[in-house]
Amino acid sequence: MTLHVDSHRLRTDFEALSGFGATDDGGLERTTFSEAHLAARAWFHERGRAAGLETRVDSAGNHSVVLPARDVGARTLMLGSHLDSVRRAGRYDGALGVVCALEVLRCVGDVGLDLPVALEAVDFTDEEGTLAGCLGSLAVAGALDEEILAAPRGGRELLVSELARMGLTEEGMIAARRDPGTLLGYLELHIEQGPVLERAGIDVGIVTGIIGAASFRVVFEGEARHAGTTPMDARRDAAVGAAAFVLGVRETVIRDFPGCVATVGDVVTEPGSYNVVPGTARLRLECRSLDCAEQDALEQALTERAHAEAAAFGLEVEIERLGRSEPSPTDERMCAALEEAADALGLSHLRLPSGAGHDAQSLAAITPSAMVFVPSVGGISHDPSEHTRWEDCLNGANVLLNATVALARSAG
Amino acid sequence: MTLHVDSHRLRTDFEALSGFGATDDGGLERTTFSEAHLAARAWFHERGRAAGLETRVDSAGNHSVVLPARDVGARTLMLGSHLDSVRRAGRYDGALGVVCALEVLRCVGDVGLDLPVALEAVDFTDEEGTLAGCLGSLAVAGALDEEILAAPRGGRELLVSELARMGLTEEGMIAARRDPGTLLGYLELHIEQGPVLERAGIDVGIVTGIIGAASFRVVFEGEARHAGTTPMDARRDAAVGAAAFVLGVRETVIRDFPGCVATVGDVVTEPGSYNVVPGTARLRLECRSLDCAEQDALEQALTERAHAEAAAFGLEVEIERLGRSEPSPTDERMCAALEEAADALGLSHLRLPSGAGHDAQSLAAITPSAMVFVPSVGGISHDPSEHTRWEDCLNGANVLLNATVALARSAG
Repeated sequence: MTLHVDSHRLRTDFEALSGFGATDDGGLERTTFSEAHLAARAWFHERGRAAGLETRVDSAGNHSVVLPARDVGARTLMLGSHLDSVRRAGRYDGALGVVCALEVLRCVGDVGLDLPVALEAVDFTDEEGTLAGCLGSLAVAGALDEEILAAPRGGRELLVSELARMGLTEEGMIAARRDPGTLLGYLELHIEQGPVLERAGIDVGIVTGIIGAASFRVVFEGEARHAGTTPMDARRDAAVGAAAFVLGVRETVIRDFPGCVATVGDVVTEPGSYNVVPGTARLRLECRSLDCAEQDALEQALTERAHAEAAAFGLEVEIERLGRSEPSPTDERMCAALEEAADALGLSHLRLPSGAGHDAQSLAAITPSAMVFVPSVGGISHDPSEHTRWEDCLNGANVLLNATVALARSAG
Repeated sequence: MTLHVDSHRLRTDFEALSGFGATDDGGLERTTFSEAHLAARAWFHERGRAAGLETRVDSAGNHSVVLPARDVGARTLMLGSHLDSVRRAGRYDGALGVVCALEVLRCVGDVGLDLPVALEAVDFTDEEGTLAGCLGSLAVAGALDEEILAAPRGGRELLVSELARMGLTEEGMIAARRDPGTLLGYLELHIEQGPVLERAGIDVGIVTGIIGAASFRVVFEGEARHAGTTPMDARRDAAVGAAAFVLGVRETVIRDFPGCVATVGDVVTEPGSYNVVPGTARLRLECRSLDCAEQDALEQALTERAHAEAAAFGLEVEIERLGRSEPSPTDERMCAALEEAADALGLSHLRLPSGAGHDAQSLAAITPSAMVFVPSVGGISHDPSEHTRWEDCLNGANVLLNATVALARSAG
């Protein structure tokens, strides 16, 4: 037996949700606590109540719709994602997972299944990092520490003022921690945000883990000199050293760290005039691996490469780590449940790591967690042109529904 | 016989001039038509009048101090440079040449030499290009054309509004053209702005020509993709192509174009986030040669390299030329006069090209022109730490004085 979501209802809701913060280019912008974001969260609760479900907001601002179990002491299986977005975002990232989680609860309620666990569809606060990144899910996992709150991605000042504006407090954020003993697990549906499923022609992806990431600020220092009067052999050109490093990062990863990625995503030279030899080049580097030891080795190899290229061109280099998240493996039993659901639905599936961060990496630290990916057309995400074919959305929702029911029943 | 400038008077004036727009770091900022620039120009005229000399302002805003010849129909030997500066400038660039030109006129006047030519010390308008670059000297040379006025370096809007604010007009700029028949020639003293003289331990440089320069905007286009979810082999990373080009420019010039220089002085990647593979890299490239044919070949080689690197990394590239100035050889007879003056003063000298642009390149097109360089400590210029030892300034001033007198006398 397989269950199927209500495609029309799900699609109508997804279209309605896409209207909050919609931009002319077909995308949307719903940064954390923006007017559009708050409206989307309110809409999510309204849709839950319209389906006869309970709604809750915890002290981290996480918004939940809940289908309680008959037994008030029953554990909870959480399904979730996030309704906030990056700037110039697409419609699918996060939002699809929340609306599918809501639809799963409605389907279970519609059919009148008497499950031995409560189901909770969660919209986590600030996954994308307008303020800090995975703020709500880290709070739930009890992983919000002083380090994160002291130097959040969007700056301390913004965090403090935005929490205050929302009537939230740092004490409240920390108090949002959930007792792991009350949880059965966590499932998240998300778009892949990469090209792997589409290229392989596979219906759904089963996520083996969320890879770790470290980010660095790298500054090469040479000497700013007149571009006309300084012979090539008398230059200490910071842009040249930075260029050698950009190529070196790519070469190192491809040659020595297959499966990893590293990116110099931000390069700026100073003073930035075409007729001055650059004295300074500022780069931001990021590298990701699914394995802690490999992540260590990768970071060390790239750091050594920066020093080697600086030395080769007579430059100084400073490297500062901006942040690091550890790799988070998913739960084998929950992955198997997702695969069994896909098999029962006749859908092809593939195990793959998630190169992007997700709320599931917070939850994985305290409860069995897993993710199902649906294909991203062209591998595009964080862009208004982000797109997933509707039948792929539907396939993912059906996998989520059937795995949820199977896992919930097995908890009885 | 050799003449010597009044070291105390020259130094006092140079120190006074350095006060206009002085900054705390020992440098100055005197962009074109700024308050400090206008004050410096007024001071220059006052110092000329205080020495009993005539003052003039032409319709391009060029400020002159003149020592007339007895014969009102006599030709004019111009000596000059500029009092405007770049932002965050040093004290010597341009200013030293103007104050030395003034001192030469005062010395000739003091001694009561009856020369068969008028001497004119000129402060040319906007050499550094706040508005257009060499604006006043191009006007004098009759080389201001519609192309320059339509797309000046600082933008059309700024040029129009600043000329209006100063009571100048484009018609007036063009009318400032001087009849070459009225000129004997042009001499300019300037700091080298490079390391050659200091490294060689030479007192003064005799400039063989001002090298040509071309500037380009180079844009590499790939695809902006998620830095975590896009495998290395699925990327079209614009920063990687740009990096290969930066190294390629250096390699090409060192290997195939000795004596030339090329600089990628400005690199910016977009969207500029460490967790997005750069979709766009914008560069500004400049290359310089002393020979027209070599300049052509250099530009072609660098353009080909940009296309080759773009192709190697699956990118598109667009190259747009922003400007080009042709190489300007100096006048052999005037160079010889400068060398003879240096010999008579017991100073060592070296012929070298000027890698930087100067007003002399405008004048060279209509009248015999030459330049004398004094050493720059550390080769530094366009920076508050720009410095030339006072004895080197004095050596240059004495060479300028004696060459001026010799050339003026030979015109009789």
